[in-house]
Amino acid sequence: MKKTVQTAIVGVTGYAGAELARLLLHHPRLHGKPPVFAGRVEGKDLERGGVPIAEIHPQLGGKNGNDKLKIEPFSWELLATRGVDVLFLATPHELSREWVPEALKRGIRVIDLSGAWRLTDPANRAVYAFADEGSEPAAATQAQAVYGMPELNRKQIAGARLIANPGCYATSIILPLRPLVAAGLVDLEHGIVADAKSGVSGAGKAPTARTHFMYAADNLSAYGVFAHRHTGELLEQIGVSDEEIIFTPHLLPIPRGILSTIYVRFKKAQTRESVARVYREFFAGSPMVRLYEKALPQIQYSVRTNYADIGFQLDAGGKRAIIVSCLDNLLKGAAGQAVQNLNVVQGWPESEGLQ
Amino acid sequence: MKKTVQTAIVGVTGYAGAELARLLLHHPRLHGKPPVFAGRVEGKDLERGGVPIAEIHPQLGGKNGNDKLKIEPFSWELLATRGVDVLFLATPHELSREWVPEALKRGIRVIDLSGAWRLTDPANRAVYAFADEGSEPAAATQAQAVYGMPELNRKQIAGARLIANPGCYATSIILPLRPLVAAGLVDLEHGIVADAKSGVSGAGKAPTARTHFMYAADNLSAYGVFAHRHTGELLEQIGVSDEEIIFTPHLLPIPRGILSTIYVRFKKAQTRESVARVYREFFAGSPMVRLYEKALPQIQYSVRTNYADIGFQLDAGGKRAIIVSCLDNLLKGAAGQAVQNLNVVQGWPESEGLQ
Amino acid sequence: MKKTVQTAIVGVTGYAGAELARLLLHHPRLHGKPPVFAGRVEGKDLERGGVPIAEIHPQLGGKNGNDKLKIEPFSWELLATRGVDVLFLATPHELSREWVPEALKRGIRVIDLSGAWRLTDPANRAVYAFADEGSEPAAATQAQAVYGMPELNRKQIAGARLIANPGCYATSIILPLRPLVAAGLVDLEHGIVADAKSGVSGAGKAPTARTHFMYAADNLSAYGVFAHRHTGELLEQIGVSDEEIIFTPHLLPIPRGILSTIYVRFKKAQTRESVARVYREFFAGSPMVRLYEKALPQIQYSVRTNYADIGFQLDAGGKRAIIVSCLDNLLKGAAGQAVQNLNVVQGWPESEGLQ
Amino acid sequence: MKKTVQTAIVGVTGYAGAELARLLLHHPRLHGKPPVFAGRVEGKDLERGGVPIAEIHPQLGGKNGNDKLKIEPFSWELLATRGVDVLFLATPHELSREWVPEALKRGIRVIDLSGAWRLTDPANRAVYAFADEGSEPAAATQAQAVYGMPELNRKQIAGARLIANPGCYATSIILPLRPLVAAGLVDLEHGIVADAKSGVSGAGKAPTARTHFMYAADNLSAYGVFAHRHTGELLEQIGVSDEEIIFTPHLLPIPRGILSTIYVRFKKAQTRESVARVYREFFAGSPMVRLYEKALPQIQYSVRTNYADIGFQLDAGGKRAIIVSCLDNLLKGAAGQAVQNLNVVQGWPESEGLQ
Repeated sequence: MKKTVQTAIVGVTGYAGAELARLLLHHPRLHGKPPVFAGRVEGKDLERGGVPIAEIHPQLGGKNGNDKLKIEPFSWELLATRGVDVLFLATPHELSREWVPEALKRGIRVIDLSGAWRLTDPANRAVYAFADEGSEPAAATQAQAVYGMPELNRKQIAGARLIANPGCYATSIILPLRPLVAAGLVDLEHGIVADAKSGVSGAGKAPTARTHFMYAADNLSAYGVFAHRHTGELLEQIGVSDEEIIFTPHLLPIPRGILSTIYVRFKKAQTRESVARVYREFFAGSPMVRLYEKALPQIQYSVRTNYADIGFQLDAGGKRAIIVSCLDNLLKGAAGQAVQNLNVVQGWPESEGLQ
Repeated sequence: MKKTVQTAIVGVTGYAGAELARLLLHHPRLHGKPPVFAGRVEGKDLERGGVPIAEIHPQLGGKNGNDKLKIEPFSWELLATRGVDVLFLATPHELSREWVPEALKRGIRVIDLSGAWRLTDPANRAVYAFADEGSEPAAATQAQAVYGMPELNRKQIAGARLIANPGCYATSIILPLRPLVAAGLVDLEHGIVADAKSGVSGAGKAPTARTHFMYAADNLSAYGVFAHRHTGELLEQIGVSDEEIIFTPHLLPIPRGILSTIYVRFKKAQTRESVARVYREFFAGSPMVRLYEKALPQIQYSVRTNYADIGFQLDAGGKRAIIVSCLDNLLKGAAGQAVQNLNVVQGWPESEGLQ
Repeated sequence: MKKTVQTAIVGVTGYAGAELARLLLHHPRLHGKPPVFAGRVEGKDLERGGVPIAEIHPQLGGKNGNDKLKIEPFSWELLATRGVDVLFLATPHELSREWVPEALKRGIRVIDLSGAWRLTDPANRAVYAFADEGSEPAAATQAQAVYGMPELNRKQIAGARLIANPGCYATSIILPLRPLVAAGLVDLEHGIVADAKSGVSGAGKAPTARTHFMYAADNLSAYGVFAHRHTGELLEQIGVSDEEIIFTPHLLPIPRGILSTIYVRFKKAQTRESVARVYREFFAGSPMVRLYEKALPQIQYSVRTNYADIGFQLDAGGKRAIIVSCLDNLLKGAAGQAVQNLNVVQGWPESEGLQ
Repeated sequence: MKKTVQTAIVGVTGYAGAELARLLLHHPRLHGKPPVFAGRVEGKDLERGGVPIAEIHPQLGGKNGNDKLKIEPFSWELLATRGVDVLFLATPHELSREWVPEALKRGIRVIDLSGAWRLTDPANRAVYAFADEGSEPAAATQAQAVYGMPELNRKQIAGARLIANPGCYATSIILPLRPLVAAGLVDLEHGIVADAKSGVSGAGKAPTARTHFMYAADNLSAYGVFAHRHTGELLEQIGVSDEEIIFTPHLLPIPRGILSTIYVRFKKAQTRESVARVYREFFAGSPMVRLYEKALPQIQYSVRTNYADIGFQLDAGGKRAIIVSCLDNLLKGAAGQAVQNLNVVQGWPESEGLQ
């Protein structure tokens, strides 16, 4: 493992990309090694020397030298010239399907923030309708992919060439459910309900009718009912069938943050302590998960952190639980988890540069 | 039934009270008969001639004569002098417990917006810990109370002396569930989940840590988990046991509006049409419920109206449904429903003054 | 003057158009005479029978018959067939430049909400760069236009064939300044500062980078500095030169409402009463302007009303004043003022249908 | 100068105090030296071992050892025992008036975030009505106070025993105006207008009618017109008389951030470059001020940073300028500037721990 590492980001113009840039620029192990920013900027001709990143994201500028950082036109030659070791893709999944095989061929490790390589079951991938679905190169690439949630498979991530960074909703639902399901506590026949609510940054930077301030503000709406793309991740990572879980996303009138309210029934009555113990053991070596032992988490406490916050409450009989999990969709739900994966790969402390 | 009617409002300084004042001031059947505003105003000495209502709620003022309307100190004599027929109480439940028996004794009809008289089962009332619980006068008063949801018991309301106006969360959950449960469609053993989200006006006008802008804005939090006061209304009006439903309220960073996402399992597979038919029949004569046949309701469409909006979606197998209901917590969830009840009592069209 | 009137709206899909539809549908003098909705709907083929307006604006639907109202493809024949007397244009100014001459030729009165015909001085119009600028038909049309602010020129509006409905910012600045300038109180040499702040609906319904929730929320930004299109209206209607006033608009993170903070210096020291008297006299017959004699107006009090609220405070010496004016940019700043103009034209009470 | 330093914070329960705690906990020169938190917590008995800071501010907790940090009951003994060198007071000004003399006597350096010691002219202090105004000890303490804005008087701060940390509004107005006024560019006779807008955190943590979500959200209001406490700081630090500047604060519906729009007239016509040069020279050694050479600053770009952002635009003739300045009221406007002052005192790079 190299002591330091040269990173590159494609897709820095988006919200997750901007957070990723911020995290990598301030990462203590990457000082003096700013990421290469490669890609395109709508309405700008990058061929004439690139666009200063501070022009796209003024908050990344300042009197700290970042003003000189530019977004350059993407090319494999650029990455080669700069000696890029790890490529972060904060791009649409179609692009990731196309570029990842090439990057792997060129020996570049990829941390992909899109949904392109997260799902192993073709049935779950159907919702994406990938153009190369079923092709041999795609299958070969998929075989190398590791689902990038350190709390679940830290070891596989450490050696992975392709890390499929999890979806934001998926992270907020898998983390609180996997320990309980794995421990055999949950009555799956009864079914799980995951009612999730996300801030608008989750809907992306493209101006649409749904991201218009007048639509989102002072409003709440459910969407993707019985049809959201993150469902496949839930099934594969929690280990449940489509019949055993319902997941409904909602669009919250806030910039960032996800809160998921999860309803489970236990096979046998539990106590607060018996459930807490399962969580404590599962997350023993996980610095980025916080258990709330007294109150319930709220979006305000996890936003702008890389923590996933988990709390719960049992009914009087101990047979039903309401679990509340919160995280920042751009951090633990995207860019922060990507950096966490980088830390795992490099053998650095998992929370390095994330506090 | 008298052709016109003299109303009075106690509690006009609060949010529901202000909406009630607005509705009654513009009600086409009450022209020239503004409500009597009786009560107290914190920090003001009403004895010196009352406080202009436009001083408390500038939006109720204007060049329309309302500037002369004042809040006067409450007394039974005041109500008698003014010939009050119908008294709206937008007051804390403790006050309603105290005043309602007296009002009834004096022959004044009461529409009570508090939780004081909504519950018939003492077990469900326990959460309120009423000081007069179990007393004979309280029992006698409770016996006269009718749960004021016209869509459920229009006839009883028409003749009632005491109308217990429903809770806001309760309205948003009872309306979409009662028809399906009454029709025997729902697998109650499986349990119902009602995940509800409300704007901040539902938390009242008193400045508290939770209603501080810095707490509520950019945030979402669950509260009253397994313990919210509206639960009893759900049990009594839907006809389910405590084991058969879970209800979790959340505090949304918006001024007003409730969205409830409700998860049910059917005994037998249903079709979109079979479910829609149940709703259409149940709400046939109900002008204030709107069924969404294509899209799902959103808070923005019901806010500032007296409508309860209901929409739903079935899973592929037709065994599970996600129902979304929306309403304005201050209107259909409080003041608007109170006026709807007044309309029923007076024999006026149910939506009079509410569109 | 006809007792009733057939209206039509072009541009009902936008925010001002939707408010206009709501106002006309509930206008007491127009009962049974809903407006004709003509135009186009992006992504919809209107030729197949039109699009229900409730599909575009669910809040306009309901169980009140409005469900049958449709947006039909615009044609002059449609307007003729329906006997349209008054045409409201809530359209881009380019379209208004094109259509207004034709409408006038066909004998249809026009209330135009765009900036097409508000300015008489070609120098002030330069900022719009109208394609037909300087042409004879354009000049002839402009000659018929009356600036549609009833508080300023009620009489001319009553007989006008073309009413140029004022800009939202312009309304919020002209109303508080015109009385003081007309009375000769203001030291114009010293200059006036108008610092204005508007909600996002003022930026229109098209999704853009600036109307994205992530841009507007939790933010404030100045724009159009020394260059906003409404400046010409200020100059012509207040009667000041470009040197004598500075106007800066800001984008507020709220859906609707404008607050303008205006700074003036008086030629001679004034008292609170001497200034209030000027306002009271000027607005004596104006039901839609409210003077705040004690507190200052706030956006929350005028929003969702057609009132322009004005308040002010003098410094200790009486030489400087800070004037605060508030209104709803979609109502007194657009659709409400348009209906007010309709009322003036029809000889109805000016606030009819606006309270 | 000691290489490291022991800090203490009184008032960590408030918004500025919480930011200060966060900054000091992550300050690279203070690793292993967390601040002492002393004070009281409403509704908590600190005598029984203190209250964990993570209980008050969950976002400060985590798996990073901060969980053990507690707020302890304030006493001079506590500070002595812990060897406190620098005391940050994020307390009401009354308390600062009382405690600062004692702290100085005990040899503790104070950085006071309140308004207690900012003003040298008794006339400007009148608005505070200090109980000890005019007393000898107060005068002696005031004589030691240095106005803590490093961009203005870095050298005096370096040696100061008492640093009066500037007001948030004052910082956002003094920084853009002082360079221009000092350079003699501004026509003071003409007068300056500073129209300032601040997020709700500026109004403090106490729940009041004005900080209620229902009051602040979807609203904008002016307040403290001709009477705000920060006015004195403007006069003393910019070097203008009360007649020469008007300052109006407004309450924005956002959690944090200030934008000030400032209107000046120049004595002689300027160019963009001539003005920019004045700023560049003035802020040459100031890492925490960013000049916007192309666009104007917006709140979103400075929020959660310690930067003061300044941009401006001239009118066509070069005689009038609109200057826009933005900062985070809790950082450059309070806690961040306090840490900047600590850096100056310690001889550390001024932006240390602030990026």
